[in-house]
Amino acid sequence: MKILVLHGPNLNLLGVREPSVYGKETLEDIERALTDRAASLGFEIESHQSNEEGELVSWIQKSIEGYDGIIINPAAYTHTSVALRDALQAVSMPTVEVHLSNTATREEFRHKSLTLAACIGQVMGFGATSYLLALDGLVDYIRKTQGA
Amino acid sequence: MKILVLHGPNLNLLGVREPSVYGKETLEDIERALTDRAASLGFEIESHQSNEEGELVSWIQKSIEGYDGIIINPAAYTHTSVALRDALQAVSMPTVEVHLSNTATREEFRHKSLTLAACIGQVMGFGATSYLLALDGLVDYIRKTQGA
Amino acid sequence: MKILVLHGPNLNLLGVREPSVYGKETLEDIERALTDRAASLGFEIESHQSNEEGELVSWIQKSIEGYDGIIINPAAYTHTSVALRDALQAVSMPTVEVHLSNTATREEFRHKSLTLAACIGQVMGFGATSYLLALDGLVDYIRKTQGA
Amino acid sequence: MKILVLHGPNLNLLGVREPSVYGKETLEDIERALTDRAASLGFEIESHQSNEEGELVSWIQKSIEGYDGIIINPAAYTHTSVALRDALQAVSMPTVEVHLSNTATREEFRHKSLTLAACIGQVMGFGATSYLLALDGLVDYIRKTQGA
Amino acid sequence: MKILVLHGPNLNLLGVREPSVYGKETLEDIERALTDRAASLGFEIESHQSNEEGELVSWIQKSIEGYDGIIINPAAYTHTSVALRDALQAVSMPTVEVHLSNTATREEFRHKSLTLAACIGQVMGFGATSYLLALDGLVDYIRKTQGA
Amino acid sequence: MKILVLHGPNLNLLGVREPSVYGKETLEDIERALTDRAASLGFEIESHQSNEEGELVSWIQKSIEGYDGIIINPAAYTHTSVALRDALQAVSMPTVEVHLSNTATREEFRHKSLTLAACIGQVMGFGATSYLLALDGLVDYIRKTQGA
Amino acid sequence: MKILVLHGPNLNLLGVREPSVYGKETLEDIERALTDRAASLGFEIESHQSNEEGELVSWIQKSIEGYDGIIINPAAYTHTSVALRDALQAVSMPTVEVHLSNTATREEFRHKSLTLAACIGQVMGFGATSYLLALDGLVDYIRKTQGA
Amino acid sequence: MKILVLHGPNLNLLGVREPSVYGKETLEDIERALTDRAASLGFEIESHQSNEEGELVSWIQKSIEGYDGIIINPAAYTHTSVALRDALQAVSMPTVEVHLSNTATREEFRHKSLTLAACIGQVMGFGATSYLLALDGLVDYIRKTQGA
Amino acid sequence: MKILVLHGPNLNLLGVREPSVYGKETLEDIERALTDRAASLGFEIESHQSNEEGELVSWIQKSIEGYDGIIINPAAYTHTSVALRDALQAVSMPTVEVHLSNTATREEFRHKSLTLAACIGQVMGFGATSYLLALDGLVDYIRKTQGA
Amino acid sequence: MKILVLHGPNLNLLGVREPSVYGKETLEDIERALTDRAASLGFEIESHQSNEEGELVSWIQKSIEGYDGIIINPAAYTHTSVALRDALQAVSMPTVEVHLSNTATREEFRHKSLTLAACIGQVMGFGATSYLLALDGLVDYIRKTQGA
Amino acid sequence: MKILVLHGPNLNLLGVREPSVYGKETLEDIERALTDRAASLGFEIESHQSNEEGELVSWIQKSIEGYDGIIINPAAYTHTSVALRDALQAVSMPTVEVHLSNTATREEFRHKSLTLAACIGQVMGFGATSYLLALDGLVDYIRKTQGA
Amino acid sequence: MKILVLHGPNLNLLGVREPSVYGKETLEDIERALTDRAASLGFEIESHQSNEEGELVSWIQKSIEGYDGIIINPAAYTHTSVALRDALQAVSMPTVEVHLSNTATREEFRHKSLTLAACIGQVMGFGATSYLLALDGLVDYIRKTQGA
Repeated sequence: MKILVLHGPNLNLLGVREPSVYGKETLEDIERALTDRAASLGFEIESHQSNEEGELVSWIQKSIEGYDGIIINPAAYTHTSVALRDALQAVSMPTVEVHLSNTATREEFRHKSLTLAACIGQVMGFGATSYLLALDGLVDYIRKTQGA
Repeated sequence: MKILVLHGPNLNLLGVREPSVYGKETLEDIERALTDRAASLGFEIESHQSNEEGELVSWIQKSIEGYDGIIINPAAYTHTSVALRDALQAVSMPTVEVHLSNTATREEFRHKSLTLAACIGQVMGFGATSYLLALDGLVDYIRKTQGA
Repeated sequence: MKILVLHGPNLNLLGVREPSVYGKETLEDIERALTDRAASLGFEIESHQSNEEGELVSWIQKSIEGYDGIIINPAAYTHTSVALRDALQAVSMPTVEVHLSNTATREEFRHKSLTLAACIGQVMGFGATSYLLALDGLVDYIRKTQGA
Repeated sequence: MKILVLHGPNLNLLGVREPSVYGKETLEDIERALTDRAASLGFEIESHQSNEEGELVSWIQKSIEGYDGIIINPAAYTHTSVALRDALQAVSMPTVEVHLSNTATREEFRHKSLTLAACIGQVMGFGATSYLLALDGLVDYIRKTQGA
Repeated sequence: MKILVLHGPNLNLLGVREPSVYGKETLEDIERALTDRAASLGFEIESHQSNEEGELVSWIQKSIEGYDGIIINPAAYTHTSVALRDALQAVSMPTVEVHLSNTATREEFRHKSLTLAACIGQVMGFGATSYLLALDGLVDYIRKTQGA
Repeated sequence: MKILVLHGPNLNLLGVREPSVYGKETLEDIERALTDRAASLGFEIESHQSNEEGELVSWIQKSIEGYDGIIINPAAYTHTSVALRDALQAVSMPTVEVHLSNTATREEFRHKSLTLAACIGQVMGFGATSYLLALDGLVDYIRKTQGA
Repeated sequence: MKILVLHGPNLNLLGVREPSVYGKETLEDIERALTDRAASLGFEIESHQSNEEGELVSWIQKSIEGYDGIIINPAAYTHTSVALRDALQAVSMPTVEVHLSNTATREEFRHKSLTLAACIGQVMGFGATSYLLALDGLVDYIRKTQGA
Repeated sequence: MKILVLHGPNLNLLGVREPSVYGKETLEDIERALTDRAASLGFEIESHQSNEEGELVSWIQKSIEGYDGIIINPAAYTHTSVALRDALQAVSMPTVEVHLSNTATREEFRHKSLTLAACIGQVMGFGATSYLLALDGLVDYIRKTQGA
Repeated sequence: MKILVLHGPNLNLLGVREPSVYGKETLEDIERALTDRAASLGFEIESHQSNEEGELVSWIQKSIEGYDGIIINPAAYTHTSVALRDALQAVSMPTVEVHLSNTATREEFRHKSLTLAACIGQVMGFGATSYLLALDGLVDYIRKTQGA
Repeated sequence: MKILVLHGPNLNLLGVREPSVYGKETLEDIERALTDRAASLGFEIESHQSNEEGELVSWIQKSIEGYDGIIINPAAYTHTSVALRDALQAVSMPTVEVHLSNTATREEFRHKSLTLAACIGQVMGFGATSYLLALDGLVDYIRKTQGA
Repeated sequence: MKILVLHGPNLNLLGVREPSVYGKETLEDIERALTDRAASLGFEIESHQSNEEGELVSWIQKSIEGYDGIIINPAAYTHTSVALRDALQAVSMPTVEVHLSNTATREEFRHKSLTLAACIGQVMGFGATSYLLALDGLVDYIRKTQGA
Repeated sequence: MKILVLHGPNLNLLGVREPSVYGKETLEDIERALTDRAASLGFEIESHQSNEEGELVSWIQKSIEGYDGIIINPAAYTHTSVALRDALQAVSMPTVEVHLSNTATREEFRHKSLTLAACIGQVMGFGATSYLLALDGLVDYIRKTQGA
């Protein structure tokens, strides 16, 4: 059982970038925590970060083979990318959208997600913990769906 | 340590109402699961459901004494209630907004939350599991904040 | 066979309130006429008026047991209540929306109904007679549906 | 006493066209039912269907002589015709707008009626029965107004 | 030298229809006055009224042969007809748009003209006199243009 | 002579809630000051606070008997309640809308008042003093109107 | 096998009207080319042009008997006619929308088509050739559908 | 009998400024033509041009004494000045709005006039002749009104 | 202690202009009443009226020296002037915005104030009394602020 | 003579992805059919698919040398990419926009194309056949333009 | 060679007004720096500040004689003045728009400039240095244009 | 001291692409001029052009080490890229946005910049000179900031 974790643009700066908004943990911290939690749930994690919309699209497409679900933090592309939405819709893989901060407290244009409609759900506002909750929710969803 | 769980209008029909959208679990099922999980985390749960906006406002106000956080599923009032937003802002209690379904896949007017800006974060789309993830996230937040 | 008749906020002032807009008949006049007409159709009527959105939601929920249809004049809540819409959608009871005046000739914000999409139809502009036409239409609908 | 009944574009296809939306009754069925009901109320009915906005305008204008009221289903022109609205306003004849289906459950652009503000009221969502309710309401209105 | 005068929907009711808005003069009065004024300017007038958008389009098209300009009161079609705008643009005939009343004091949807951009100018608000001013302006325009 | 003073949702938290926005005075302080000022003007005050829209509607309705005017701070319901507007319009009681803070310096959705159009005027931005100015203005209005 | 070709308002002026926008070919040229191409594909063509929305609606309705598909250039009615959309939806005949020019390079109000949602597809911007491509596409569609 | 003629900002550049849009005649040419035409109608003309909104407001106010009507070309202030609208509404003097060019063929923000609702009518698109037609229309209006 | 009172465009017509909207008192009446009330509070009043936006801006700027607060009725400029807002923000002088009538009952474009965000508060709808209430509120504010 | 064929994001999944929307043919099937048809027309085809907006921009730029036209299916980038529009405008190469499905029957945000204004025309809704029709139209356009 | 420098409303308060937004330099500092830099480039500077829109319009008009370019900081009028735009368009003088602060980081209504479309370009966000950069750019433009 | 210069999509075509809009200078010309000017100011320049949003994001991120400021012409991404805005905000490097042409004179969608709010300022409309002015402004800003 394997989960694909995708991090959108600028998330490679986590821990460096605006810590008052995004927290102090780095992407490596998050991935380590995810790997541990996944292991304890009997899942494997593979993570990628990219600043490129098209590269994220390609990673989503690759999930068709060998993956059971996706956790994605589309970051800036959340609000502008029809291509990511289409990719998620195309692969029909259970996907959870994650945000570190609560986008409802930021600029108006961040209040709307183009990608969310292609996901099963969303976790946001818990900093790095958002990813762990998303993983728990996704695993729960996969188990219920496969058990049905 | 005590968490107030508030359920908005029509959630008393859970399990009865549109199961294809909201799932088959009843509110009692959810509350029982929440109580169990909370106990294992060293927290107590108190739950209320109301169809009345004003009653929910009053419950939020009462959280000032004796509570450490709020989990709220404002249901229909998510999209129309400034009063709930004001109440949450007034009590300054860490709050997580929960939705059973992914509102991004429903009518346009459900894509915007008036209450979310007064919360620390949101979990949605995981059915009854949304509440458990919210609880985990809220407890994590309370512990980090109190430990700081 | 029983029909639930619900009157929204301020309708208890009927006959008193702005008679040039709403006519001179009181709520009691309307309920008496409805009861007579219903009796002649072999139906029973139960009526409630409330100024509270949540109380109207609760009345709609109670219709699940022992009622065959709803006639509702949501008044001001027509234009602001997602909670009423959700309640009507949840109970899946055949419902007719009624308005005394023609809302299209009033302020812009009264031209749009949030609740109508959860009803089978609408009668408006005939004053107190709107209720009687709604009853006739609802009974006709119930008979056709049950006969099918 | 005579009522003019006007059917807008595509209503000649009733019974043929999208029966899941509009029902199985033909325009002839509706007109026969209207004639019978009108007769029992001491009224005469004259019906016209046209696909042309201008022809409907002309029929409305002709109502000035020899008619006591209008029942109109403007169909597609409901949402686009200022000309029909102007005609109804010009003749000052008591008019009821009728729709077979509940337009609030269809595309966004069907939620707004340009013609309704020139009518006394509206009946919609009851299929062919909408016309009969409209007739009852219109006759009631005419009698009350003439009796005043 | 010949001017085509076109009157849109419901203008055949002039003098009958809402005299407080449109004045007491009939279309015949206007046409007689126009003919007299035109004669004194060495022009001939040909007038048509139609309730049908398409018929007005056809009349505009016919102006290509034997006419030197158009005066049009598109009435309700002012605000809804791209077809009239296209027809005027296609014939490239100097055209003046006329309105009896000041549309800026009426409903919001009457504040915008779709047809005006295909005209040389507009006269509105002077009742029947609007047509005479339009004629004077159009003749002045034709003479200046032909003299250039 | 008697004035009804109504306080909307969350105003019971005054003095506790966000003092940087709303000031340090409690609702009791305000009511005491109002009672004193009213007494000096020969008026009596009756005050109610409610978090429920419908309860506020009911209080407005009760003003019909025995009251000469209303002072209302609809708080959050200012921006969302058609029901309060309708109630004020129905009772036709001279009413003044009050706000403690200047809503123009807060979120966009607080810049528009649904209830104000049913009032004679508004006082806002003076903290607790807003109520006293509103009382002075209302008494002045009542005296002028009754003297006319 | 027979295709109905419908030309909307002002297309009878083709070759005359704004040749820089629409090209120099006349409607007769287009129809001749269509007939030839259709013959070579084993299809027959019947063409109608009308400036009247209602007449176009009626032609669409007539396609129910004896036709296998429709090619329509609704011209100005593309952007304003709900009646044409309803007619196309009612007859459920495979239909292709055609435009001579690329409407995306013209006025904003021409960027949106009301009728397109009732068609299988669209060809635009190739001048008279648009019709031939539409015919090829429609025939291809009909053959695939009938072969299925 | 005396008419006040007001020219808004930049009109002092007439004949200099963008002659392809506004024509070659200067403001003096226009005023001379207006004086002549007025004389032949038994009227006197007084003209003022100002680049200042407030000065135009003051001129309108002065019209209360000794004037029978106003012709105003508010130029740029047409689209932005509530103050001019208020001034015209305050003096209740019959006023005609004039524009040299057809504003419907210019930028979107020029399609809406704030001042027109305070005028009896409008003449636009005839270049300098617009003023003469406005004078004719205004004199006609004054005579009819005074004769009534 | 000195208060600057500024009256915007057309307020010099008070008592003359639309008395049904603005009341019968003149600007002189208002200023006399203000002077009296100010004197009783130990304050001096200096008043200016201008129809010019720029002149009002200059007066606001002059308040920096020798004034303790501003009362401004920006009239028409309320809805259009960024310059007045900037001036008020620049001088950082406690300012109260005043309106004679309740702008919420007038045209839509009067419902929004551009200047209010640069003021401490607003009084509107009490006719000339609005100024006196504003003075009371402003003096109260100045005293509290200076006492702090 | 050579045509560049560009496929946007996710089109590499054709045949796999949502076959009910996009059909069963793969990109290879489409390219083979295009190559055959092109050969029969005396043209050569070169095809590229990319999920990256920037890579598509670069391919468009390369068309300047050695190509006579472009066929592009921008897929998701149709609705979001100013960069593709700029690239097409920069190279001034005759371009046809292609869509497999009829975007007018999908989500609202797919109804508007940013890239179309930089193309000569569009073919959409015919599945894989859309490409062949686009090729025919493009070749026809190139021949006419070069022959002129 | 001479450049006209125009400063809009409230800029006379520079150095006094909100130094955190606009910096500490006064208008005199800026003009001195501009004069020096201009001298070194062989240009002369003439500067004017006005709070009045109309006065700025008049200054722009005067530039026709004896000036080679304009540098304008329209301040608040940037967002509201069609009159300034018209004046700039009328004189056809190369103009550069200047802002001290970056308007994109301020209120939404400051993000749009009405005047910019009548300028050759814009410099903003560099405080007083914005003017010097604008001068350099303008001189560069004038030399290139005159040299061509 | 080192400045990073970033050129967005299609700017590699400078000198080739639409010279009437963007001028005749190539990107190499601009970079050479920038390098010279920078050298004279004691700064070094490093330039990159990319058609890919993500690559530009990555270049911005790299500026954290070894750079003192950024000059960016985001071209098409100005209007669509939240990712670039986030990257600029994350690195907190003083940045100047540059445009060759005046975007206010182009299509509506180019009037708004998403990236500008993350910059200190903007220079636009001076062709290649825009870059030199941006460099001067940026160096001036860096010196003032470092000197503080």
